[in-house]
Amino acid sequence: MITWSNLDTLPSYKKMLSLKGSVKLADVLAGPDAQDRVAKYSVPMAAGLKYNYAAKHVNEQVLGVLADLSKEAQLAEKFEALYNGEVVNTGEKRMVLHQLTRGQLGKDVLADGTNKRDFYVKIQKDIADFADKVHSGKLVNEKGEKYTTVCQIGIGGSDLGPRAMYLALENWAKANDTFKMSANFISNVDPDDAASVLASIDISKTIFILVSKSGTTLETLTNESFVKDAIKKAGCEVSKHMIAVTSETSPLVGNPDYMACFFMDDFIGGRYSSTSAVGGAILSLAFGPKVFAEFLEGAAAEDKLAQEKDIFKNPAMLDALIGVFERNAEEYPATAILPYSQALNRFPAHLQQLDMESNGKSVNRDGAPLNYVTGPVIFGEPGTNGQHSFYQLLHQGTDIVPLQFIAFKENQTKKDVVIEDSTSQKKLCANVTAQIVAFACGKKDDNPNKSFAGERPSSLIYGDSVNPKTLGALLAHFENKVMFQGFMWNVNSFDQEGVQLGKKLAKAVLSKQYDGALKAYAEFFGL
Amino acid sequence: MITWSNLDTLPSYKKMLSLKGSVKLADVLAGPDAQDRVAKYSVPMAAGLKYNYAAKHVNEQVLGVLADLSKEAQLAEKFEALYNGEVVNTGEKRMVLHQLTRGQLGKDVLADGTNKRDFYVKIQKDIADFADKVHSGKLVNEKGEKYTTVCQIGIGGSDLGPRAMYLALENWAKANDTFKMSANFISNVDPDDAASVLASIDISKTIFILVSKSGTTLETLTNESFVKDAIKKAGCEVSKHMIAVTSETSPLVGNPDYMACFFMDDFIGGRYSSTSAVGGAILSLAFGPKVFAEFLEGAAAEDKLAQEKDIFKNPAMLDALIGVFERNAEEYPATAILPYSQALNRFPAHLQQLDMESNGKSVNRDGAPLNYVTGPVIFGEPGTNGQHSFYQLLHQGTDIVPLQFIAFKENQTKKDVVIEDSTSQKKLCANVTAQIVAFACGKKDDNPNKSFAGERPSSLIYGDSVNPKTLGALLAHFENKVMFQGFMWNVNSFDQEGVQLGKKLAKAVLSKQYDGALKAYAEFFGL
Repeated sequence: MITWSNLDTLPSYKKMLSLKGSVKLADVLAGPDAQDRVAKYSVPMAAGLKYNYAAKHVNEQVLGVLADLSKEAQLAEKFEALYNGEVVNTGEKRMVLHQLTRGQLGKDVLADGTNKRDFYVKIQKDIADFADKVHSGKLVNEKGEKYTTVCQIGIGGSDLGPRAMYLALENWAKANDTFKMSANFISNVDPDDAASVLASIDISKTIFILVSKSGTTLETLTNESFVKDAIKKAGCEVSKHMIAVTSETSPLVGNPDYMACFFMDDFIGGRYSSTSAVGGAILSLAFGPKVFAEFLEGAAAEDKLAQEKDIFKNPAMLDALIGVFERNAEEYPATAILPYSQALNRFPAHLQQLDMESNGKSVNRDGAPLNYVTGPVIFGEPGTNGQHSFYQLLHQGTDIVPLQFIAFKENQTKKDVVIEDSTSQKKLCANVTAQIVAFACGKKDDNPNKSFAGERPSSLIYGDSVNPKTLGALLAHFENKVMFQGFMWNVNSFDQEGVQLGKKLAKAVLSKQYDGALKAYAEFFGL
Repeated sequence: MITWSNLDTLPSYKKMLSLKGSVKLADVLAGPDAQDRVAKYSVPMAAGLKYNYAAKHVNEQVLGVLADLSKEAQLAEKFEALYNGEVVNTGEKRMVLHQLTRGQLGKDVLADGTNKRDFYVKIQKDIADFADKVHSGKLVNEKGEKYTTVCQIGIGGSDLGPRAMYLALENWAKANDTFKMSANFISNVDPDDAASVLASIDISKTIFILVSKSGTTLETLTNESFVKDAIKKAGCEVSKHMIAVTSETSPLVGNPDYMACFFMDDFIGGRYSSTSAVGGAILSLAFGPKVFAEFLEGAAAEDKLAQEKDIFKNPAMLDALIGVFERNAEEYPATAILPYSQALNRFPAHLQQLDMESNGKSVNRDGAPLNYVTGPVIFGEPGTNGQHSFYQLLHQGTDIVPLQFIAFKENQTKKDVVIEDSTSQKKLCANVTAQIVAFACGKKDDNPNKSFAGERPSSLIYGDSVNPKTLGALLAHFENKVMFQGFMWNVNSFDQEGVQLGKKLAKAVLSKQYDGALKAYAEFFGL
């Protein structure tokens, strides 16, 4: 029997709050036991990744309380209910099935008259068949030429995740001879976005993927229209250059403009859709269906770990709990995501949506106001770039920002250079190492301007390289972390009512149904 | 006589704190006087831009206290001292002269045996002459072909600002026939960054710009070496493909590998260097010297406004003061930058460095610890993309994040499409309008999950379009805002000692001079 309780009603909540400031990183990491701690505070993830939390403000006592909280909040049971098809998205009254797109974790889930796992597998296969036809030249453009380029038209979850995943694997695919088509993305309703992308590609050899679950997203339909005009101006037929990813009930279905239509459904939230057809179509076309399948394998393996009840075997759950401790006990308002890999350039932007849109809520899953803070602000850029940018504030600013480092032993292109006796990749890893310790331990200096207070906590996820499997595991880790934090905070992590009011008011402005401030601002723009 | 005092010693500081929560946006913006307020709370900027703060938590009383604080902190006098050459960068004992790169605001500033304004003008002219030779074909590659591409090698301030400015003007230049060369950027020490850029360009027709003030930045020199190898492998001569931007005392000077060397100096901080040779070389090569000169004109005009003592005529000062009120009285920990223009895609990343590296400090300019918070976390993505990402938390999260909207009446490419009776650009502006009001006024709903508490403050900078002049003005506005906030908090906004410890420890790791935690983490990576 699952009870959905607010965090502050759990028996160990006050105990957790009382442990604020109880661990000093300078004590536990600067002493002789540091190496033991670093070795011990490490949890295996899937695909050879590890989650290390030695530089977090935790010790046996804190971890004990977090383990208690995980049981009191029934985290494992709630995840089980979710993947077995309980209507966990309470606001929209929907099941939450993104994990099912990459594996069967529990019972068969039936909906819309089908077994949903079979449905997702079939879609994946349909996409694979389509991609194979494109790659083999069985499906060609109106002039009989092979397609060389794919371009996704989508926004939010239909853009950020797939884009981050594409960028993460682009150089890997080139180095491993699985690069099939180059991908581009059009998202912003700013017409300069679409105009600029269209000017950079050969439209006659491009397949555009329109991605909209509802088939009614205004930005996406606007950009589709922009693209269709461009296809026609290029002397091409729209129906030779567009496919759609949408739901079976969408108004897009049956439109002869699309060569093919691949389905997603209401049980896949946009920000959780990278492993569904939303990511599947573009990644399968760009890198081949096999690469996409490996990506799903990595995610599925990570999902299995998320089933563990023991927090020390469940990296996503542990990461989530430490995050709750940092947010609610230590009272830190933000978290930075710092991947030391250029391939993960846009991964922070994806996590920013994933986390902030899921857990940026002020009411619980039943609509009751909460008495504690929920999701933090998430931001980040790849290192070492960030080091030369906002790290100053992270090291010496007045607020403490917890950090999530991500790093790899090897780079993707295998091209490197030795300067001062080390490769660039070694320098990259040396920098991560240095930063973790600098943030945690700080350094006193007679010149206070050169002093570092330390006590800035970080965790590290590291592995061999960014490849389809590690990327899938990484993605699933964060999806599951966000889900567990949502369970802890007792919010619905799967809706986004906060985006509705802006949409509604924008329509009011466009139809001139306004007064007061709305009218005043609209007049600035001559609307 | 200027007194450098901590914020909490100013006579009006406590008064400011007492005004926390004194203004309700729902009252002042929802009522019949909303239109007056929106019209009144607006300050002209340069190049036709306007700064509107009607949706901020201010009223006549708050603004009165902020005006008092501006006088007590002697903001105008401190700026005057700065541009007249006082050693305002106390930690590094340097003058701060970035405003001088774009105009003479006060007395002649003499240093290094020269009039610094003359020096900057000469560098700008040298760059213009070089760019003209490249564009006209007087200077060509070893095969006698024209150069088509320029590639900046730099990190931090040598990358973020110039990159953001290039992206901001790329489509504008193409639409206005001033696009001369396409530009690329290599920054990350991750070798995949350089490898990926090099694979995408024709090296034989590329001019690489090595940018490093000291000439010793490890990332940049590593990437230079990577690039030199690639130039040689492409069968080209390094000395036909590289120029440098560095200081006159740098070890790079006189190196025959560079076709030309353009100087910057110690009085230009990296993050303030977009209007110096650091931005000048790449922007002049990409768009022509005339465009760069217009960009400087816009910045210079904005700097002039920053001289005003009256906060209602000085948008940067007013913006700074409102930010201090939000940070120290309202206690908001972060600020989001939301440009509704795809051209400003990376402008938030630049401001993130500019702001967080400048004011993320815990000691005052004399090294004494501070008893109040300083610089906030800065993050952002362009709208409407952000609306489909992290806006959920901004609207309905438990923390309030002040917002900076930036928007324009016209797009750059002039290409647009009409859907549902409006252009994309109109939709973009309607969205900004809607968001400002939605954030400020919120909306009650019987379903608490669909309720919006409102009271989320924002300001708006708006103008006709992103072009060289408005971009220069926008850049200078934020540079000056950050400077004024630094004056208020009494920190040194022009050094970055917080980046040093990490550098030092990274060197220790690479030379295996480590133990304890440093060794333990290094072993993860086989270092």
